[in-house]
Amino acid sequence: MANPLRTHLEKVVAFTDAEFEFVHSHFTRRRYKKHQFLVQEGELVPYAYFIVSGLVKLGYTDAAGKQHIISFAMEDWWESDFQAFYTQTRATLTLDCLEDTEVLCLSFANYQKLRTDLHKMEHFFLEKSNGGHIAAQRRILSLLTTNARERYEQVVQQFPSLLQRVPKTLLAAYLGVSRETLSRLSS
Amino acid sequence: MANPLRTHLEKVVAFTDAEFEFVHSHFTRRRYKKHQFLVQEGELVPYAYFIVSGLVKLGYTDAAGKQHIISFAMEDWWESDFQAFYTQTRATLTLDCLEDTEVLCLSFANYQKLRTDLHKMEHFFLEKSNGGHIAAQRRILSLLTTNARERYEQVVQQFPSLLQRVPKTLLAAYLGVSRETLSRLSS
Repeated sequence: MANPLRTHLEKVVAFTDAEFEFVHSHFTRRRYKKHQFLVQEGELVPYAYFIVSGLVKLGYTDAAGKQHIISFAMEDWWESDFQAFYTQTRATLTLDCLEDTEVLCLSFANYQKLRTDLHKMEHFFLEKSNGGHIAAQRRILSLLTTNARERYEQVVQQFPSLLQRVPKTLLAAYLGVSRETLSRLSS
Repeated sequence: MANPLRTHLEKVVAFTDAEFEFVHSHFTRRRYKKHQFLVQEGELVPYAYFIVSGLVKLGYTDAAGKQHIISFAMEDWWESDFQAFYTQTRATLTLDCLEDTEVLCLSFANYQKLRTDLHKMEHFFLEKSNGGHIAAQRRILSLLTTNARERYEQVVQQFPSLLQRVPKTLLAAYLGVSRETLSRLSS
């Protein structure tokens, strides 16, 4: 069976077997149980995570203790508190598992090394970063211009499988509506 | 006087004179008057713009004709409808000048060429894209977690010069509040 990281990388650019082995050797594999944390607020963020299987959520707890959800991420996605990771400062966000999750961890030193050693990896990461930037800009526009029903319908359309896997309470937190409003929207 | 593009690039990585001349030769210089459009909704987006001087706004007009502002950009920033630019599709956003503005235009073909020909440029663009992605994520968090007063105070703190240069009506559209609410916040 094809390595999921290789399949993922080669959606952007092809690698020789030797190049891929070199890239792959910079990752470490880890398994987390549902409810475990990958990133905790106030701690350092040593890794960016490529998700092999499972589902995680990136969240922020405000001063009043209310939880806000920035994003969900599943198989074939990258996730981390990227601000803290890129600047090697302490996390302001939390990343935890909604399902048992298997990841490939890339340390910041190895992220920089892969970029320096292999132009292809710099190219790959730039394509991913541009995609992430565009997705974030779409979310800004959605928050500025749509109501809860429209946001719910966008999620249904873009990520139909999320609806089956994410508890309703968390989906409501992601949409910025109450649990009761969500029930009304999804009925 | 140092070239503003070179100063900007060398905040990330140093270039030899020959390398910089090569990079610079891929840009074309253009001047726009206040109120002119760089990007119009429904048209193709041939360029990403490095702003040498001036001030532009990136906006979106919703189905009801209401204008929303995604961002302002001034000297030393890049701006475009990046989704349309990266995918070479038609613009969903508009980019227009709030002041007379001078830009360096980079076509999509030259953007790709610089990335392929010069690993340093791929590195530079990845650093900028990561920065843009982080800034967009901060804006999402701000829209999810703060009220109008807090968002106004964030702008005052992060971009004090914007307050002097941006008309109050547009600042209100950026913050997602009415002109009257903004007057109350800024008094």
